[in-house]
Amino acid sequence: MPELRKDPIVNRWVIIATERARRPIDFQVERDAKRPGLCPFCPGQEDKTPSEVLAYRPSDGPGARRDAPGWRLRVFPNRYPALMIEGELARAGDGVYDRMNGIGAHEVIVECSDHARSFGTLSEPEIESVFSAYRDRILDLRQDMRFKYVMIFKNHGAAAGASLEHSHSQLIALPVVPSVVAEELAGARDYFSFKERCVFCDIVQQELNERKRIVYQNDAFVVFEPYAPKFPFETWVLPRRHRASFTDARHDYRALANAMRVALRKLNVALDDPPYNFILHTAPLHDGENAHYHWHIEIMPTLSKVAGFEWGSGFYINPTPPEEAARFLREIEEQ
Amino acid sequence: MPELRKDPIVNRWVIIATERARRPIDFQVERDAKRPGLCPFCPGQEDKTPSEVLAYRPSDGPGARRDAPGWRLRVFPNRYPALMIEGELARAGDGVYDRMNGIGAHEVIVECSDHARSFGTLSEPEIESVFSAYRDRILDLRQDMRFKYVMIFKNHGAAAGASLEHSHSQLIALPVVPSVVAEELAGARDYFSFKERCVFCDIVQQELNERKRIVYQNDAFVVFEPYAPKFPFETWVLPRRHRASFTDARHDYRALANAMRVALRKLNVALDDPPYNFILHTAPLHDGENAHYHWHIEIMPTLSKVAGFEWGSGFYINPTPPEEAARFLREIEEQ
Repeated sequence: MPELRKDPIVNRWVIIATERARRPIDFQVERDAKRPGLCPFCPGQEDKTPSEVLAYRPSDGPGARRDAPGWRLRVFPNRYPALMIEGELARAGDGVYDRMNGIGAHEVIVECSDHARSFGTLSEPEIESVFSAYRDRILDLRQDMRFKYVMIFKNHGAAAGASLEHSHSQLIALPVVPSVVAEELAGARDYFSFKERCVFCDIVQQELNERKRIVYQNDAFVVFEPYAPKFPFETWVLPRRHRASFTDARHDYRALANAMRVALRKLNVALDDPPYNFILHTAPLHDGENAHYHWHIEIMPTLSKVAGFEWGSGFYINPTPPEEAARFLREIEEQ
Repeated sequence: MPELRKDPIVNRWVIIATERARRPIDFQVERDAKRPGLCPFCPGQEDKTPSEVLAYRPSDGPGARRDAPGWRLRVFPNRYPALMIEGELARAGDGVYDRMNGIGAHEVIVECSDHARSFGTLSEPEIESVFSAYRDRILDLRQDMRFKYVMIFKNHGAAAGASLEHSHSQLIALPVVPSVVAEELAGARDYFSFKERCVFCDIVQQELNERKRIVYQNDAFVVFEPYAPKFPFETWVLPRRHRASFTDARHDYRALANAMRVALRKLNVALDDPPYNFILHTAPLHDGENAHYHWHIEIMPTLSKVAGFEWGSGFYINPTPPEEAARFLREIEEQ
């Protein structure tokens, strides 16, 4: 059983994989490893993955059969899950430390059947489907009261942590709220206490007024480079309408698909198909007091190797002012 | 002038380098760049660096001449500083945002004259000298009341962010306390309020009692794998004696050199000379209320590329339990 352990100094939980532990030799081998052979995420290879928990496929005909080809999008548990779905949390102290069982869900969302297409090159209806799948899975998992947060993210490219090439996102349902989300919630709450306004709404307003960090906008979303970005070309996609939770925004998913597609196209052209991560920031599942929060997506191209220092210090040096990054990205045509 | 900008949601400052901004093409070129030519950190190349601010060299003879060969250790301002030493902070609002001028010091500590030797292979007296140099520089910089924190760190290996091979550390003096340090201070303060004991002292006690995460110990230091490590083989070097500030521990630097040398030797053998970062965690320069803090060093091997996600989420999945990492490291002989 994996374990969730809490750092006794700062309020951060980590997952410790106690079952398939990696030994020193594993890291040495991994440094130059390539993964040959058939892609387990491709149609026809459904037996290489756990059974699907969601798929978008025809309602009848041969393509309608579960765990068989014919799907447009397919979700299944990670074959090597970081967390286990069965069991009790068993939260307990361990001297000065805190631990609980590594209970949670870890799923893979394969975004399209074609191995060769990347997320940023999907059509807007296809990208909209991916967001609908995120919502379907969050709504299903929130019925399990052990879970407090569902984190959804995408790693694109080996340097951004993608171990398989076929375009996919990952979902992790957690019995704790991750520290960065907790900090955002606390910051937004503090701002709201002081100003009686949402900090994200104020950011949208200022960015639309100043325009110097805006990359793109449509009726429902603003794509911009944040004022204090940790990384060069870090790009945020913020809904104009204030809502704490992504799952309440389903009527905006088509506009979100448009905003994400344009944002990724511009980054791909500017930076020559960079590796990147994006992370869906949304409110915790059951906390009723998050009216001051405002869901959004953060995209982070992986351009630099200066890593461990920033990881350890929380101190970021960004060589690209967001105003210049935004200017470059604005100049790239949208289609 | 570089800028310090504060994220309006979470309490994090970033440095934005506004003067020598990197454009998209720079990142493309950089991906596979090698750096040919002479090493500017080697003896005889002193004219390739800014003039030294500290050097350990003979007190007379040809080696005594400033900015000339003969030194054992040499400190100079970074040629491409992230922060500027001259100017006023000019802290100001910018709508919902906060900024100040990028005032600070950014220095390079070249740890030995021999290009071929790495930090972990220096002798204990040589490593002790490096720590003495850290102290000398902190004590000098703390006279400048604009600075609140001096962060010292080392990147070893290209994958850990080292742009030059010749063994060196870096120092950044900052007009703000970095967010990770602020979180540690707050966490240690909360623990002290509750228990009236130092959390780090309690950790040392529990680790010495349980022994399962201990890697090495000497009279003054404990080397161990922390209970909730963010990364595989993350290793902490904690002084047994409670002191908030590294600069007050000078009589322990020889024992620290011993502990660091053994820790790095074990990591090098176990992981085949891995890239790594280490970060000196010490109290802010002028804050008198940090009696609950406890200085230490954190070493983080760079074994994994799963980067942007953790950066953005604060959520870490560690495939190596610290108890197993400690067992591997204990088995490696110390000399």
